[in-house]
Amino acid sequence: MTDLQRHAMTAPEVRPAMAPVAPGIVLPGQRLEFPALEPLPLDCGVSLAPFTVAYQTYGTLNADKSNAILVCHALTGDQFVAEIHPVTGKPGWWETMVGPGLVFDTDRYFIICTNVLGGCMGSSGPATVNPATGQPWGLSFPVITIRDMVRAQKRLIDHLGIDSLFCVTGGSMGGMQVLEWAACYPERVFSAMPIATAARHSAQNIAFHEVGRQAIMADPEWSGGSYQRQGKRPERGLAVARMAAHITYLSEAALHRKFGRSLQDREQLSFGFDADFQVESYLRHQGSIFVDRFDANSYLYITRACDYFDLAAEHGGTLANAFRGTKTRFCIVSFTSDWLYPTSENRAVVHALNAAAANVSFVEIATDKGHDAFLLEEPEFFATVGGFLNGCAEHRGLKRP
Amino acid sequence: MTDLQRHAMTAPEVRPAMAPVAPGIVLPGQRLEFPALEPLPLDCGVSLAPFTVAYQTYGTLNADKSNAILVCHALTGDQFVAEIHPVTGKPGWWETMVGPGLVFDTDRYFIICTNVLGGCMGSSGPATVNPATGQPWGLSFPVITIRDMVRAQKRLIDHLGIDSLFCVTGGSMGGMQVLEWAACYPERVFSAMPIATAARHSAQNIAFHEVGRQAIMADPEWSGGSYQRQGKRPERGLAVARMAAHITYLSEAALHRKFGRSLQDREQLSFGFDADFQVESYLRHQGSIFVDRFDANSYLYITRACDYFDLAAEHGGTLANAFRGTKTRFCIVSFTSDWLYPTSENRAVVHALNAAAANVSFVEIATDKGHDAFLLEEPEFFATVGGFLNGCAEHRGLKRP
Repeated sequence: MTDLQRHAMTAPEVRPAMAPVAPGIVLPGQRLEFPALEPLPLDCGVSLAPFTVAYQTYGTLNADKSNAILVCHALTGDQFVAEIHPVTGKPGWWETMVGPGLVFDTDRYFIICTNVLGGCMGSSGPATVNPATGQPWGLSFPVITIRDMVRAQKRLIDHLGIDSLFCVTGGSMGGMQVLEWAACYPERVFSAMPIATAARHSAQNIAFHEVGRQAIMADPEWSGGSYQRQGKRPERGLAVARMAAHITYLSEAALHRKFGRSLQDREQLSFGFDADFQVESYLRHQGSIFVDRFDANSYLYITRACDYFDLAAEHGGTLANAFRGTKTRFCIVSFTSDWLYPTSENRAVVHALNAAAANVSFVEIATDKGHDAFLLEEPEFFATVGGFLNGCAEHRGLKRP
Repeated sequence: MTDLQRHAMTAPEVRPAMAPVAPGIVLPGQRLEFPALEPLPLDCGVSLAPFTVAYQTYGTLNADKSNAILVCHALTGDQFVAEIHPVTGKPGWWETMVGPGLVFDTDRYFIICTNVLGGCMGSSGPATVNPATGQPWGLSFPVITIRDMVRAQKRLIDHLGIDSLFCVTGGSMGGMQVLEWAACYPERVFSAMPIATAARHSAQNIAFHEVGRQAIMADPEWSGGSYQRQGKRPERGLAVARMAAHITYLSEAALHRKFGRSLQDREQLSFGFDADFQVESYLRHQGSIFVDRFDANSYLYITRACDYFDLAAEHGGTLANAFRGTKTRFCIVSFTSDWLYPTSENRAVVHALNAAAANVSFVEIATDKGHDAFLLEEPEFFATVGGFLNGCAEHRGLKRP
């Protein structure tokens, strides 16, 4: 075998855009296919190969590859950070943050976002085809962890030839990936900004996820996870899962301010089970639009990865051990009204970083918008993120745009 | 028609114990059947007739009928307050509070608890038979309100010849009934103790209830509400509803203390979707035992009644108007870690009572047990309730046992 042949068998293959993801859905964007000879070892003990990482980039990688920011998406987010979403037609989930002249200034930084392993927007996951069988993986896809997601991302970063990411950031489950990056590959992370997250999933977090999973698995259309092969879709169960989760993303105050007890398109109670209240109508809508863009099995896998996340447990039970000797510059951000990943959980990360003598700043943003605040217009949040990035960019000697 | 005949047609009929409630379930206890000539006017505009109120009593009504305490049960509670439950075989839900020598001392007080209208333990509700059709009501049962529940209770109190209840008390939805009693029939309520409740259902409260209802209605076995006639049971949907609700009954701290991230009957993660964590196993158990004792349509009706509850709206938009001129003695109790009906909601009731110049005391109990604290061993709570009752009993001249 020549070196060229060997390279052809082992080098990741960049596929053209518009690769088919699932029946009826064709996604634009970039996909990197890692061949069978480069398996990805997973925490469950299985090695995944071949596997695919779908991703998007914004801005331009500079000559010394020092301006790359890896943005990690949350539970039901994806790689379409700052462009019209190809499935929903809606703006990207961080379009207010990522773009020319914005906080993540694409005139200065090169932004990368991958669809997480286990996801359903092009990366390998239960909805994709198992090459060994030609059938969708379904529940035969290995159960993955946050660390596995990060391992897959690192393969992409290696492929792109980026030795050191200028920053790794993300909110919620994205923040867990940030923490895992900083713990697993500290020399590859110049700065890290985990937002509205936790170093472990709490009992309440697990409980809410379990309700969602049970809602999906209670739907007969789920068919033991093999609904794709049977041409079915557990839409009702997935919608209920989304509704339950959505409540946890908002604060009681935000729900009160947005909806209160206002009625929906009526002046009086109907004395029935229609959506009398605006908040009911809103939740039903959130459930119904979610099923058009998300795969039910992916929801099981990704919630499971969150539940399994416990960074201290990975490091002998002491969170500070995850960060010993780190040179990464950290900024931890939490929101006062976030009850899903409250300030106390974020502060626990700060304490561990302090115990490891890390370079860390911590900002708690006052807002009544709840956990979802990291996706919303929050001037103080934008200022915090921008300020941290600017400071780090000066330390790294990145040119101003 | 003689007076005797007319009486026979119009007087409520006390049925013997062990009346059949639903196929396979035979309940002990008392049932009062109000005849067709005594319809119950409901808030929805319909009059319900005939209708049944199932109830239990503990202790002895004294000669001047001045020692009666009406205990109002919560969402999924029932009239079996202080005895082995006939369906579950478990102790009554307030057995630590109600009994000889206990806080609600049955040597001193006569305790009454009715199954709420819309319930499924013998009172008229969607699971009972519509006499006009001979079929279960299902969704043709009229949608009821907290005020309707109280109206039905008052019929029982009238029947028992009790002019003035010594106390009306209850937690959660029971507390809403207490507030409604005090507002609708102030002259019939000597003292009132609403616990861990609110004068209106918040947007977040409605949202969680809507998730539960959607989980039930998403279950194909629900069959548009006519499952009884079809010999089906929407158990999976009802279990999911219960699981989601159960999280709201506990505080994050209580979940952490009880379960944390402890694994269930295993030493390592299974990398699957079984109940790896104790909190998952606990929730699944709560869901599975609930469906054995509760009717899915009842769950829809009773959650709806809570959502519709807005005492201020019933009184021109000003909560204090609900209590103008009241002579009832009030004690409001809340729990620090209750995020379902937080102290702020209970305090809003206190403020309204103060604005109405009512006799009111307010106690916030420090506990990490969450909303369910009113059902649990809480010495400070017991002392608060006992102290209030003793003070009221002295004012009313009730003999010590």
